[in-house]
Amino acid sequence: MFRSHTCGELTISEVNQEVTLAGWVQTIRKFGAITFVDLRDRYGITQLLLGEDLNSLLDAQPLGREFVLQATGKVTERSSKNANIATGEIELSVQSFKILNKSAVPPFTIQDDTDGGDDIRMKYRFLDLRRNAVKKNLELRYAVNRSARNYLHENQFMDIETPFLIKSTPEGARDFVVPSRMNPGQFYALPQSPQTFKQLLMVSGYDRYYQIVKCFRDEDLRADRQPEFTQIDCEMAFVEQEDILNMFEKLIKRIFKDVKNINYTEEVERMSWEEAMWKFGNDKPDIRFGMKIGNLKFPLHSFPNKLAHLQNTLIGVGDCGFAVFDNAETVLAIAVPGCSEYTRKQIDELTEWVKRPQIGMQGLVYIKCNTDGTYKSSVDKFFPEDKLKAIADAADAGAGDLVFVLAGKEERTRKAASELRLEMGKRLGLRKEDEFKLLWVLDFPLFEYAENDNRWVARHHPFTSPKPDHISVMINNNPLIEQADKYLEHPYANIKANAYDMVLNGNEIGGGSIRIYQRELQEKMFAALGMSDEEALHKFGFLLGAFEYGAPPHGGIAFGFDRLCSILGGSESIRDFIAFPKNNSGRDVMLDAPSTIDNKQFEELQIRLDLK
Amino acid sequence: MFRSHTCGELTISEVNQEVTLAGWVQTIRKFGAITFVDLRDRYGITQLLLGEDLNSLLDAQPLGREFVLQATGKVTERSSKNANIATGEIELSVQSFKILNKSAVPPFTIQDDTDGGDDIRMKYRFLDLRRNAVKKNLELRYAVNRSARNYLHENQFMDIETPFLIKSTPEGARDFVVPSRMNPGQFYALPQSPQTFKQLLMVSGYDRYYQIVKCFRDEDLRADRQPEFTQIDCEMAFVEQEDILNMFEKLIKRIFKDVKNINYTEEVERMSWEEAMWKFGNDKPDIRFGMKIGNLKFPLHSFPNKLAHLQNTLIGVGDCGFAVFDNAETVLAIAVPGCSEYTRKQIDELTEWVKRPQIGMQGLVYIKCNTDGTYKSSVDKFFPEDKLKAIADAADAGAGDLVFVLAGKEERTRKAASELRLEMGKRLGLRKEDEFKLLWVLDFPLFEYAENDNRWVARHHPFTSPKPDHISVMINNNPLIEQADKYLEHPYANIKANAYDMVLNGNEIGGGSIRIYQRELQEKMFAALGMSDEEALHKFGFLLGAFEYGAPPHGGIAFGFDRLCSILGGSESIRDFIAFPKNNSGRDVMLDAPSTIDNKQFEELQIRLDLK
Repeated sequence: MFRSHTCGELTISEVNQEVTLAGWVQTIRKFGAITFVDLRDRYGITQLLLGEDLNSLLDAQPLGREFVLQATGKVTERSSKNANIATGEIELSVQSFKILNKSAVPPFTIQDDTDGGDDIRMKYRFLDLRRNAVKKNLELRYAVNRSARNYLHENQFMDIETPFLIKSTPEGARDFVVPSRMNPGQFYALPQSPQTFKQLLMVSGYDRYYQIVKCFRDEDLRADRQPEFTQIDCEMAFVEQEDILNMFEKLIKRIFKDVKNINYTEEVERMSWEEAMWKFGNDKPDIRFGMKIGNLKFPLHSFPNKLAHLQNTLIGVGDCGFAVFDNAETVLAIAVPGCSEYTRKQIDELTEWVKRPQIGMQGLVYIKCNTDGTYKSSVDKFFPEDKLKAIADAADAGAGDLVFVLAGKEERTRKAASELRLEMGKRLGLRKEDEFKLLWVLDFPLFEYAENDNRWVARHHPFTSPKPDHISVMINNNPLIEQADKYLEHPYANIKANAYDMVLNGNEIGGGSIRIYQRELQEKMFAALGMSDEEALHKFGFLLGAFEYGAPPHGGIAFGFDRLCSILGGSESIRDFIAFPKNNSGRDVMLDAPSTIDNKQFEELQIRLDLK
Repeated sequence: MFRSHTCGELTISEVNQEVTLAGWVQTIRKFGAITFVDLRDRYGITQLLLGEDLNSLLDAQPLGREFVLQATGKVTERSSKNANIATGEIELSVQSFKILNKSAVPPFTIQDDTDGGDDIRMKYRFLDLRRNAVKKNLELRYAVNRSARNYLHENQFMDIETPFLIKSTPEGARDFVVPSRMNPGQFYALPQSPQTFKQLLMVSGYDRYYQIVKCFRDEDLRADRQPEFTQIDCEMAFVEQEDILNMFEKLIKRIFKDVKNINYTEEVERMSWEEAMWKFGNDKPDIRFGMKIGNLKFPLHSFPNKLAHLQNTLIGVGDCGFAVFDNAETVLAIAVPGCSEYTRKQIDELTEWVKRPQIGMQGLVYIKCNTDGTYKSSVDKFFPEDKLKAIADAADAGAGDLVFVLAGKEERTRKAASELRLEMGKRLGLRKEDEFKLLWVLDFPLFEYAENDNRWVARHHPFTSPKPDHISVMINNNPLIEQADKYLEHPYANIKANAYDMVLNGNEIGGGSIRIYQRELQEKMFAALGMSDEEALHKFGFLLGAFEYGAPPHGGIAFGFDRLCSILGGSESIRDFIAFPKNNSGRDVMLDAPSTIDNKQFEELQIRLDLK
């Protein structure tokens, strides 16, 4: 061993001991004839004191930043202590040292506030990983991993490895494929998730399965997506939705406790998908703050259950004579608390904000709910005070609040209201980094209709079960639709899934469902998705076959491990929590991968390029 | 929850409780008006008693093997108890039941001694996994996993995930490659091991890393190899070989304790590679028994350190006039204990055994060391008794032993002696399944010479460091060889590696090395392996670069997780310990993978087939 102690453990109680440390030179400071070196390793920093007697040695072998140094000496009490670090009461009076390896000058500083930009840090990721900020992230990741495993182990879950070289069954996302040399002309696929395998394990009786496992999706990478990502993947047999919710909200609470020392004692809130869309404009609402959406006008099809409210004029307002609202499909309002005194400039800036292409609104109507009970708006000439009040009431606004009203097409307007709500929440400091709010979103629609392909697609995935009450609707109706634009009238449009998403601070961190376990229902699902019987058998024959031999009721969930870690670590980017991430083109710039391969490899695999 | 208890937990103390169980019907036995059902789940088997009152229900919904059943009733004490199972004192007096799912008749019985052959069991792996024998294997695998993680965690190792989509750098085994759609014409490779990444993590200061991780090698599959396999992969910084040996023999001892309840208190034996080859004829000797090889004659080049012994006649015997030995490069003897009375038939059978093509010997000479002190051999006419005794002494044979002598070319003969030793050990019951003997094999040669390619190849891998004393030999000599057949005279032939293998009962379960951490030495290694500077930079530029920024001394080890589990489980086959294994053609016969892919996939990936 090159050391007797780490750089993070020596304290006043080791004074006078002779010890050996090894680590990296963080800083070198000369004071006259004396040299101080901060020596860093994974565990901390210890100050080395190199006295006058070592000067000739130091002259012969000058130290530099990031040199690997081994130093032996006596632990001594410091004259000026540093309360900020664990070893701040002592220093090492060096008797001898050895340079274990030199270092070139790093291309950026190894500090929390480094001077290195993103590109250079990714190219030299092995240096970036030395920075304390990055190290803390990977330590947090390991702590989450450990906590999850402990909890799942204590609850009788078994880690069972599923294969990585499987069969390509593209349905939804694109597969990465792997040519098979031993089976020329054939390809493996890398798993998008171990979904069918964990279901087979339930058929096999394994009952409680988990895995922290890499998954692969060949998708065009939006910011903060990775072609390979990690899931905490779980499945249970003989359970209903309620059992899954209980088991896995406790998992997340356990992680809060183990990793963040947070006692999350309150019940986890639950919300239906419809309510989430209705009140928050998206299916993963951040419920750390209010500002719920007031629905003043909305089209027929979004919320079948809310048909009773439908009308062509503003709810509670009636005809208004304001063409923008009259002609809009949807009119939504949100009340920003305590902002009734926003200046013209502030409101103009927000108007520009909603007009950006990412949001895509035409404009922003405001109503100031003055503290004296009066109302002032940008549409005063169309709306007398009582009507302004009615709109403000719909958004649940009180005196002192500022109401924003958005109007336009349903989907875009709802999304805009959601974005504006999140933006205002952020600006007002309502989305606190150290507050964690969990939410179950339930009762998703089972299907969406893909108008382009003229077929149903599974909102979750093809193995998700309908609500028990809806199974007969699914079995007893032909999924085919005669007139594509009438799909909302098809019984399938109203089938709800036995599916659930776990949302943390406005991010989906996990999702799952109770699965189909009957062959007939699974076949109906494949048919609904437009698969022929032959195709279903070719792709999923093994699963359909398994359902014939005593498949138990089962369900599960998968958590996005990278995302969960980034939220717990208070970061927007999952990349910060991955040791060797890829960039937005799917490249590892450190390795320079992907890259070309040899002719010999092409020959052996019996493939060739066919570049356009 | 579909159950209140599992099928493995009810005992006499739950008598009179009302409970609900769910599981699979293992057996159905009718006794008059009463029906007994054994209900099975992951945790055990509970006997259900269905009384006369349920007969009409049973008639309406007949049960069958492997049906999924939910049953509610009272726990009652059995009249005839079954001491073999945990629940044997009770049974469930069923009040109501529900068939949760039916089952077709399985294609083989779900029992330890199933009637299903290998092929059918692999096709229906989801049913095979229900068998207790297979379940026990996966449970053992999980227990090893858990034990290893706990030990490594307690010793400050961090699980850090390394990427799966990396760069193809074929050197040794073949890579599986993955075409990149986003980078047309370029490919990722799947990792053969996380070797370079764990080294980078050491450069980054992570100090103690581990991962239980899938690795991939596209090799022609010998029996019991898998294209994807799992490693317990570990690396440490600031260590020397001795530190690694200590840390990881304790890991294996901990696994013995946790998984098999074995206190492995004795020291782990150590042996140099030369000694292993000399005394056992292979580099992973089974040291549960003796029967060491007596080296009577051997060629110059195998053991440079044993040159002093070299002679052209049999050691201790001299000229013998027996052409088979006189003309042989190598003559080796082993003493089989207590077998001097083997019959002619027994010896003939063993002679045939060594003449099989897999062993490839011309014949087998025997010497019986009779209990009366006399000797009797198949070569009596060439060897008087004193010379027979000299041969027997070389094999360390005593009275009552049977000595076998093998002669021929060095490599084949040594391998044959090793195989014969193992075979006789097995036949004599000396390789006890419940005895576990660990061994470190050390001091491997750093290089082998590939005469076909006319270059050095790394025996371990290109990142393995030479012994400290041999570094200067490596740096100061040109690796090029003028005359290929004189490679033994090159200084590189004698360089020993800082490498170690852990051997358990004659199987290599792990191997590793202290790594190179100096750029100059690493470049010399790449050059020795015949890589040009450009090629080295293209393939491993990131690693050479990393070594310039303060790389610490480091080393590590990787254990073959599948193999380790199979040995602990007393099986010859790793496939029995993998949930979803592939066959010898790399196929998953359950999924029917690999398979063809769609034209759309070819188009998107910009590749096409080029079948011969």
